[in-house]
Amino acid sequence: MEQQESGTSRRAFLERLGAVGGTAMVMAAMDAWHVPTASAATAPPALTGAGKGKTIVILGAGHAGQVAAFELNKLGYRCIVLEARGFAGGRVQTARRGFTATELGGETQRCDFDPGEYLNIGPWRIPFHHRSTLHYTKQFGVPLETMVNDNDAAWMQHNDGSGALKGKRVRQYEVKTDLRGRVNELIAKAATSGQLDQQVRAEDRELFLDYLASSGRLKKDLAYRGSDLRGYVKPPGAGDQPGTIDDPYGLSDLLQSHLWRDFQVGEYTHPLTMFQPVGGMDQIAKAFEKRNAPMLRFNCEVQQIRQTDKAVTVNYVDTKTGKTASVTGDFCLCTIPLSVLRSIDTPFSDDFRAAMDDATYVPVGKIGLQMKRRFWEEDDGIYGGHVKLDHPAIRQISLPSNNFQGQKGTLLGAYLLFDGATEVSAMSLKERIDYALAAGEAVFPGSYRANFERGFSWFWHLAKYNLGGWANWTAEARKDSYPKLLNADGRIYLAGEHLSYLGGWQAGAIESAWQQIEKIHQRAQQA
Amino acid sequence: MEQQESGTSRRAFLERLGAVGGTAMVMAAMDAWHVPTASAATAPPALTGAGKGKTIVILGAGHAGQVAAFELNKLGYRCIVLEARGFAGGRVQTARRGFTATELGGETQRCDFDPGEYLNIGPWRIPFHHRSTLHYTKQFGVPLETMVNDNDAAWMQHNDGSGALKGKRVRQYEVKTDLRGRVNELIAKAATSGQLDQQVRAEDRELFLDYLASSGRLKKDLAYRGSDLRGYVKPPGAGDQPGTIDDPYGLSDLLQSHLWRDFQVGEYTHPLTMFQPVGGMDQIAKAFEKRNAPMLRFNCEVQQIRQTDKAVTVNYVDTKTGKTASVTGDFCLCTIPLSVLRSIDTPFSDDFRAAMDDATYVPVGKIGLQMKRRFWEEDDGIYGGHVKLDHPAIRQISLPSNNFQGQKGTLLGAYLLFDGATEVSAMSLKERIDYALAAGEAVFPGSYRANFERGFSWFWHLAKYNLGGWANWTAEARKDSYPKLLNADGRIYLAGEHLSYLGGWQAGAIESAWQQIEKIHQRAQQA
Repeated sequence: MEQQESGTSRRAFLERLGAVGGTAMVMAAMDAWHVPTASAATAPPALTGAGKGKTIVILGAGHAGQVAAFELNKLGYRCIVLEARGFAGGRVQTARRGFTATELGGETQRCDFDPGEYLNIGPWRIPFHHRSTLHYTKQFGVPLETMVNDNDAAWMQHNDGSGALKGKRVRQYEVKTDLRGRVNELIAKAATSGQLDQQVRAEDRELFLDYLASSGRLKKDLAYRGSDLRGYVKPPGAGDQPGTIDDPYGLSDLLQSHLWRDFQVGEYTHPLTMFQPVGGMDQIAKAFEKRNAPMLRFNCEVQQIRQTDKAVTVNYVDTKTGKTASVTGDFCLCTIPLSVLRSIDTPFSDDFRAAMDDATYVPVGKIGLQMKRRFWEEDDGIYGGHVKLDHPAIRQISLPSNNFQGQKGTLLGAYLLFDGATEVSAMSLKERIDYALAAGEAVFPGSYRANFERGFSWFWHLAKYNLGGWANWTAEARKDSYPKLLNADGRIYLAGEHLSYLGGWQAGAIESAWQQIEKIHQRAQQA
Repeated sequence: MEQQESGTSRRAFLERLGAVGGTAMVMAAMDAWHVPTASAATAPPALTGAGKGKTIVILGAGHAGQVAAFELNKLGYRCIVLEARGFAGGRVQTARRGFTATELGGETQRCDFDPGEYLNIGPWRIPFHHRSTLHYTKQFGVPLETMVNDNDAAWMQHNDGSGALKGKRVRQYEVKTDLRGRVNELIAKAATSGQLDQQVRAEDRELFLDYLASSGRLKKDLAYRGSDLRGYVKPPGAGDQPGTIDDPYGLSDLLQSHLWRDFQVGEYTHPLTMFQPVGGMDQIAKAFEKRNAPMLRFNCEVQQIRQTDKAVTVNYVDTKTGKTASVTGDFCLCTIPLSVLRSIDTPFSDDFRAAMDDATYVPVGKIGLQMKRRFWEEDDGIYGGHVKLDHPAIRQISLPSNNFQGQKGTLLGAYLLFDGATEVSAMSLKERIDYALAAGEAVFPGSYRANFERGFSWFWHLAKYNLGGWANWTAEARKDSYPKLLNADGRIYLAGEHLSYLGGWQAGAIESAWQQIEKIHQRAQQA
């Protein structure tokens, strides 16, 4: 058994990767891998007893706050949820026609996508093993559809390598099939000439060759000469059309192309297929909001938190009226991101506050592009999945998994992280769109710009109530600071994706809330 | 360039495979691979001129017949479609509540699935590259949804191998990840010790190692010690739960298990995700039927075809009334399967008839099982895809890709081919269900039988108007006989999946019709 290093050594891993493959590789890995894992809990904690007569002040109506309110309310607690925005959901937001948002220092954007078109500006995919998230979609009857997260038919194009494939637009199945075939041929021949006799037991050798031949599609002489898995130059059809395949690429060209660096590495963390709620990720937030409505107070910006050994008082300002007010409760569950909480007047101990300061927040942004025609489907036969580029900041273009064969479609034209995110977020709204269009035009020449209709961009490090996409813990911070924040400071508990090993995922926020409300309930029962 | 051997040497390939891996492997390959390919044509032929005053008698209202009627009608031809059944679609049928069907020598089955539950008893998945099929779903606005055709989370269980994994129920991602890791480690170590210096150019060696390390998830010392891609024994979660992975399986156990033989080999022919029409495959047939209604004559069983150098006359019996009648046209397009056509009184030349006899038809059947609870989702977190078994006849259980997280669900409990199909089709309806339930119970002990509610089974070799699933051509028959049937015999043209290299696929029938109506139109215009 081995403790997985995923969460704690992410930065170390990325640094190693950067040394090997440069920023491009780091970016690709971040995206494919940035938040590893499965979720541990499959259902809320089974709590007994009653919360009658106790008030819980919950700060933030993102998933963590809403889960806490929903579950604690069932136990009889009086819950008051203060939310700075005018709607619930936190980062779980979907931009569609009429949606407005304003970045720090920016102008107000109003989304003018056509009806039915949307962009999930926060989380956009649910792995099958995030059972906590799926617990609520099932309970609330939020319809899910498949999100195609890997599509071998999608284009890839790299200029950062060398050889015959440099700059060439190829299908992912060509590269995958040829690499596997070429490498398997090489190994199979080494094995049959006795070069691997030390490594492969005599009684396994025949099966080893069978495995290499079947997975690499080798011919009887163990040579790889291409296969239908790499696609056809002249597809089979009716009558006298058996189909023709092309010669495979050479191993050296494949290796030198660097294209293989872009393959999804996350069959488990980012499975081939994931889920998305029909109509937008905010359907989950709305399902909570509907049930939590009486507990939610919107436009309440927290200004100060105070506590005694009996109670917690939160002072806030109503951003609509400018008036201040306060609420007092027996306990407080604070789900405000640490990036924001640090600047609020709080009563935390120096040690607790130092731990909060130890998390960094990832700059993240997205650019959605509504296209008037689904040219990637109609012209190229690509339905969902990601087109892979080696553009300095835009590593992939993600194609919509909804409304297949419809008239229009909205692409995720850029999913930007770290330096790429801060660089592009500094541009004007129009410049951002132009930047994304230029990247796409290189892979879809003549189609991308020509079909563009409307765009929407959003950067989480410029979101006043987030100041970043998600919390990032260095190995040291995860070891020293993170555990301190899992415990209460007085009567105040923290919760959110930042207090999980599922950072940036909805499941992290949900499971963190589950964990903290259990602690609050136990303490309230003892009192 | 290499002419792909797919269509013509299928039998030869299967024979080789049988010699290596036995019947089980042949069956698995048949399913994963039986009908290779992409479709050539993307749109109907662009025909000019007018068909006014000419009558085309079309035999069969499957896709081939309906496509021909739909397209020729637009040109002004008078089309009469004789269909033996009481509805259109041919093999494109969906069993749902109220659907009735009777096999040869069998009792009439009436499907009693719950509303919303269904089984596609004919074709059930559409590859993204079957552009001819997708041409019509788009044109007719038939909504498509993703059909999850590969799910690494699905179970696999084999008893036919040996070693530690024999009989063990494992996730596909465990086997895939560990095999790749173990094999890559082995090769990387051989490469670093100079054993592969002949095979890998000096300037490629570093990239070669990078590729092996990244795709195999090797550690810095090039050892494989497991990875999160193989799943967690204790998943990461909130608070103090970083997640724990288990030790990987050993290479010898992996090879000896034979589990790898069950992986989908067809990333292109059977992609990771395919399409299915929302609500059932027959939505495509119904879309045609709606548009073709005035041309369709149901319950018309063809008894005799005659032709002169001017016209074709078809005599048929109305199976409702028992009365005979006849229609005469300028040309006839006959889409009746060769298996059935052989027994009809036709005017074909001896040579043409001998060519018809040269096709064999594949015994194929399906068993659908309605379950009262989606235990594969709720208990095991498997959403769509195929569970892999080494049962003598049932090689996989296919999980539904519709209504995720719904209450009930209908599994494809068995997709039987060749000997397995004929063996099971000889059983009573109840015995067939029991047979399928026993296979599933082994992989889902305690859940499979306990949740079963209703079943429906159907075998195409026992379908009076089909006598088999699809046409199978040996290499010799494909070379000698097949081409003869592409040409008209007098004024009679054949069409259907049997006259394509896309046998058994809807695209084969559609493209064959496209090809033959072009010939008919050209000849009609010349006349």
